[in-house]
Formats: sequence, C-alpha cells, structure tokens
Amino acid sequence: MFNSMASICESMSDVSIDESQFRKRFEAFNEIGATDAGGVNRPSLSAENKRARDQLVEWFREAGLDVRIDEMGNIFGRREGRHPEADPVLFGSHIDSQYNGGRYDGVIGVLGALEVVEAFTDAEYTTDRPLEIVAWSNEEGVRFQPDMLGSGVYTGVFDLEYAYERADKDGNRFGEELDRIGYRGDHPCEPDDIHCYFELHVEQGPFLEQAEIPIGVVEGVFGFSWLNVTFEGQANHAGPTPMNMRQDAFVATAAVTNAVREITATEGTDLVGTVGSVDVWPNAINVIPEQVEFTLDFRSYDNAVVDAAVERIRNEIEWAADREGLEYEVEEIMRVDADPFDETCIETVARAAEAADYEYTRLVSGAGHDANYLNTVTPTSMIFVPSVDGVSHRESEYTEWEDVVAGTDVLCRAVADRATIGADGE
Amino acid sequence: MFNSMASICESMSDVSIDESQFRKRFEAFNEIGATDAGGVNRPSLSAENKRARDQLVEWFREAGLDVRIDEMGNIFGRREGRHPEADPVLFGSHIDSQYNGGRYDGVIGVLGALEVVEAFTDAEYTTDRPLEIVAWSNEEGVRFQPDMLGSGVYTGVFDLEYAYERADKDGNRFGEELDRIGYRGDHPCEPDDIHCYFELHVEQGPFLEQAEIPIGVVEGVFGFSWLNVTFEGQANHAGPTPMNMRQDAFVATAAVTNAVREITATEGTDLVGTVGSVDVWPNAINVIPEQVEFTLDFRSYDNAVVDAAVERIRNEIEWAADREGLEYEVEEIMRVDADPFDETCIETVARAAEAADYEYTRLVSGAGHDANYLNTVTPTSMIFVPSVDGVSHRESEYTEWEDVVAGTDVLCRAVADRATIGADGE
Repeated sequence: MFNSMASICESMSDVSIDESQFRKRFEAFNEIGATDAGGVNRPSLSAENKRARDQLVEWFREAGLDVRIDEMGNIFGRREGRHPEADPVLFGSHIDSQYNGGRYDGVIGVLGALEVVEAFTDAEYTTDRPLEIVAWSNEEGVRFQPDMLGSGVYTGVFDLEYAYERADKDGNRFGEELDRIGYRGDHPCEPDDIHCYFELHVEQGPFLEQAEIPIGVVEGVFGFSWLNVTFEGQANHAGPTPMNMRQDAFVATAAVTNAVREITATEGTDLVGTVGSVDVWPNAINVIPEQVEFTLDFRSYDNAVVDAAVERIRNEIEWAADREGLEYEVEEIMRVDADPFDETCIETVARAAEAADYEYTRLVSGAGHDANYLNTVTPTSMIFVPSVDGVSHRESEYTEWEDVVAGTDVLCRAVADRATIGADGE
Repeated sequence: MFNSMASICESMSDVSIDESQFRKRFEAFNEIGATDAGGVNRPSLSAENKRARDQLVEWFREAGLDVRIDEMGNIFGRREGRHPEADPVLFGSHIDSQYNGGRYDGVIGVLGALEVVEAFTDAEYTTDRPLEIVAWSNEEGVRFQPDMLGSGVYTGVFDLEYAYERADKDGNRFGEELDRIGYRGDHPCEPDDIHCYFELHVEQGPFLEQAEIPIGVVEGVFGFSWLNVTFEGQANHAGPTPMNMRQDAFVATAAVTNAVREITATEGTDLVGTVGSVDVWPNAINVIPEQVEFTLDFRSYDNAVVDAAVERIRNEIEWAADREGLEYEVEEIMRVDADPFDETCIETVARAAEAADYEYTRLVSGAGHDANYLNTVTPTSMIFVPSVDGVSHRESEYTEWEDVVAGTDVLCRAVADRATIGADGE
C-alpha cells in the first residue's frame, strides 16, 4: 500500500509547478485589498473578498475547471479524471483574510491547488480520480463568528440556517451578505463522497523556521477551550474610595491573567494560554472598573491537559472574585478536542516530501483549520510551510517563496498519489 | 476673630433653609436628563445640560439675583449686600454630570447655594458683603478633558483659547458647543476680587457614612498623578505561538496592575492606586495582544507618597516590558500637588457645624473639585455630606435628604459669618 509513490513519481516526471506563473498569480491576487503595510484586508464577504472570489473563479474557468458555488459560497473547481464516477480527491484552503492580515494565510493553499491542476494539465497528466479544488468561505471568523463556517456547514457541524443568521458587529447577516456579493450558490452545501482531503497552509508558528525544515507533515491539530469571563464589581471614584473598600473587576482580571502564565508553566509541555480580548467598563481614568469581560484560550494536543487548565483557571477566577468581592460568570463558548489526522494521508504527505527530496518533520498544528472539519467526513492531512518569525494574522506575515513552491510540489505529489486508483489499496 | 459666630447666629435666628422648597426644586431639576435607573445624564454642553442651565437661570432670576454668564459659560447670580463695594463671598459647585451619573454630585452645591440666598431673602436678612453663587462649567471632564475647565479658566490655570479648542470624541469643540447652546457669555472669565469661596459637595467616599457623621469639614484635597502607559509587543496566533516566544502586551499590563496593589499596600497609609482605562489591540479571542494602552491614577494627601508610588510603578513598567520583550512608553499626563484649604475657612465651616449642633469631622478629599482652583485665588474650604456606600459617578449615587439639608444649613451659616464685615477681622 505504501509502495506506489515511486512509480507515480516516475509517471509524473513531466509534471512540475510553474513557479513563475504561480508567483505572478500570487502577486496579482494580493493586489486585491492590499494594505499600505504589505498585508491584505479581505474579510469574509467584503467588497475585497468578492473581488478575490471573482478573480479566483475566472482563473478556475481559464484552467478548464468545472466551477460550482454551493449555498455557503464555498467555491469548487473540478477537473475530471479517468474514472469520473470515482470519489474525487479534494484539496484547497480559504481566501478570506483577517482585518489587515497577511498575504499567505489560506491563499497559498488555494492558489497552490490551482497550480497543481495546471501542472497536471500542462503535462497532459490525467489522474484516475477526479480532482476538486476548493476555497472555503469564512475561515477566519473575524467578521462572522464562528470561524471555519463554510467547511463547518459542509461537514454538518453547523446548520445552513444557523450560518445564514450569523451577524457581523453592524448586524449584517452572513446569508444576506452572501446574496449581496452574488455568492449564494445553488449547489447543496454537504459532503459529496470524497476520497480524501489535503490542505497546504503556512505554519503560523515558529517551529519549522527555527528547525530550518521546509515541510511540516501535520499529524493533527491542538484541541482548545475558549472561555468568556465576566467580573462585576463597583464603579467608584478612584480618589476617595479606600483600597480596602474596592470591588475592582480589573484587578481580578489581572490576577487571572497572571494565573494563565502559571498554569501554562506547570500543566503539560505543549499547553498555551492567552487572554486575548478584554473590555473594561466604564473605562475611565478616574473610575474603578465595575465590569470586565474577557476571554481565555487554552490549547494542547492532549485533551486532558486542556481540561486540567480549564479546571485550574475556573478556580483562579472564583478565588479572584472572592478576594475582590465580585460577581462573576464563566462560559465555555467553545471546546474542541484535539484532532489527529488520518495516518494514511499523513504517510502520503511524508512520502511525497521524501520523493521530492525535501527535508520534512511531523508536527502538530496549534491553530484550527478547515481540515479539522473535513477530517470528520474524509481521511485528511495537511502540509505546512515555515512562517518567518512564526508570525501570522498580521501584515508582516511572510513565507519564503521557495518554501511556498516546495509545499505546493509536495501537495501535487500527494494528490497524484491518492488520485491513483489502487495506489492506496482502494 | 473666632468669636463672631454666636452673635451672627443670633441675628440669623429667623434664617432657615426651606426644606420642602429645596426638595421640590431638587426633584424638578433632576427630571432634566433623568435616566431609567434613577440617575441623570447631563454631560457638559449637552441638550440636557442646556435645559438644566436654563432652569437654573430662571430660578436665579426668580430669586432676585443679578445673573451674569461669563465667556466660559460659568453662571453667576449676585445678591447685593449692605456694602456693594466689598468683596463678595462666592459659593456654589457645578451642574454638569457624568454620562449616566448621579443626582447629587455638584447639584446640591448649586441648588443648596440658591436655597441659602432664598433663606436670607425670606428672613429679610441682609449680609454686609455681596453674595455670589456660581455653577461652574465642565467640572466632570467626561465629554471635554480636562475636568474643572470652567473654574480652571476663571482662576487662570488654563487659557480661554485652550479651553475653547477642547474637543469631544466626535470632534465638537467646547467653544463652538458653548455658542450652540447659547451660553458663551460676554463677561470676562477671570477672578474678580473675592472674599472667600465655599463649596458644598457629596463626599464620594465612604468615610462619613461609616463614621455616622453628617458633616465633613474639608481640610484639603489629595494630590495625584495620572500616567498613560503603552506596551507594544507582537500580535501572534494564540494557538501555534509557544509561551516562550510571546511578547504579550496584556500580560505585562496585568503584572503592572498587580504591582499597583502591592505599592498601595506598602507606600503611605492614604495612598490609592487605580488602573481605570484599558484598551487592548487587536482584542481578539485567538490573537496575542500586540498593544495595550492603559492609565494609572495614584493619589495621596502626601506629595512625597505620590512621587514614590510613581517611581515604583515606573520600575514595574520597565521590568514587565523587559520580561515580556515589549516596547513601552510612560507619560505623566497630569500631576497635581495636594492642596490644603485655607485654615480660616476650614475653621468657619467647623464653627458653623458646631453652631447648628451637627456632629462633624475634619477630613481630606480624595477627589478634585472646583474648590481646588478657587483655592489658588481666594481663601477656600468645602463642606462634605455623606455618600451612601461611598458611591458616586453612578446612577445609584445617594445621600440622605436630611444630610443634604444639614450641609446646606452649615453652608448658610458659614456664608453669613464670612459675609459679615469684621467677623473675621477683615
């Protein structure tokens, strides 16, 4: 079952990524919504996101792909195989960005997928199985929460109606905005039979760059817990209120934030913890904070470690509220288990990297991806390429171009392998 | 010099505060901008503030006062004395409120002043010196910063042009807004010769209520320092960024907040310290905070204690930035020395409370007041009445009505005393 790669790679000897075409497309694509600081601003269903979608569909059509848009605005492009009735190999990522985000996150997985089918076409290489490439809607979740909404509905995690009702902070609903930009498609948003799914993505962490390894073979994704915490005290004047009479919601928030560092230092080796969002009320220089609403994010590849961290921080929240005389509420707004990918797909990616002679390492992703949801309906794995300084979700996000090409090359070989009937014993 | 009170009180035997008229006016006044939760929303130069000003001017005129509005919109009402050429006794407070603030803060000092002159008129009691009552503009400083702007210009702390250029968050300038509501008066905003100044105000702290004492004789006001601090780190993804690679601006903010508590616990007995305003960027659940801008407020009646607290917190800020690998900036945006009031005025208030048989205590104000600025140009003191639960700047701010009346009675006696030529040896 694992011996096929050599023969496929031989038959693929004419298949190669057109690096200069890829670069040209990458640069042209990132002119859409480009920011002065070198990033892109294409949040989900924005005018810039619509223009990026239009460009992508145009390129899909030029590449001879059969384009379909589903009810969630997920964009698919299909290249027929020798056996049209066989389950297709699906691969892709997303093209929506953070507000003032980076140029690589998501983009290289979609444009890379396009280059893969172009490479097959240029080499007149036909796969046994059909190939489908995809750009999922609303992966980032910055305008409409939750994130990974397009792949979430596709895999049955969310209802279509639930997704349509998600509203941005101005009250615009996802369904209406999808209509407005002309991307509410007719195709049902549900998983067809898929043979397997691959996704090329930037690491968004420092590991590959620090290890000087171009390819990460992703074994799975961290589980995480998101908590929303509210402390409620008394907003008194910062001058005449003695320290011993204060019920200061921000002092308790600070204590919990310190505890996050203590917990991550002592509870599991891969545990990370973050207080990311903090809103203080009334937020005035001379008024003791009456209310603070803040978030906690704990992640590990070990579900038990996440659970232990959540239990410890719940205690810290209670103790901080007790000390300060506050009311408090803690709500776990999301809990996702660690998600190990399919071992066969992981092996495929590893052998593809070997065949192309790239150094690679197995690793685990700290961030969630559309691949997580796909992994619930079909065998899945991912390919990571290094993020310089581990930076992502910022305009300065950067990946060396040779690493982008290397990752796309690995994607190409992995797809070719799994699109060959019999190659994996199926 | 301190023997006059008895004789004045005898000649004042017919002078008494008309409690029911006062209550009626207080309730009517607080219908203007009343909030559902029992407070008032009359920020400086708002439509509600204009209506409150109109009501006040109408009552001043009905009370036979000679009304004048100065260039800062400060409203004066003058009642002539036996010696019109003598320096007047000035007393009053402010009628602008916090956003959704309380009904007592400022209001009782202005309406109380009106009741004092009404009481004199009802009793056909004429003072030697003229009396002037005043409502200062923009005391709260919530819409236009800095606070105490009207008394600040009056006493020469701020230029008139500086005050006119102050803008609210929508860019509306103080001078233009003053014009718009029709309260940019012709009278120069500068201190005429004033004999002395008194201000009746709620304590805004818990001391009087806890001690069950109705009258606070205010000896002076805390000095304070306001710092604005910015930490700047790196906004990375909360999942794939290991703890040891983080530059988290909020973790440093939490450490400094904890240090504020340590400093107040060990540096001076009356020192208070507050982190009141905190703004986090990008403020997203799954992104490490890149930037936090927050404020520090340290107060004490001992200037050296404030200085020591500021020095210690500057060290803590530096150390927190060092630990986390952040850039930082600290700016002292305001530094006001502790302000002892005039001993003669303090004594006058104490003897007035004694004469009326109210229990009283000397205390120091943690909050700043217009009286601070007046104290730079004329002998000044204040009268405090208890704030239930020490609460102020909130809709639930409350003072027992009998305490409001007691404070007004003390104000009346203090004013009568100092308006008597020869009473204080002058």
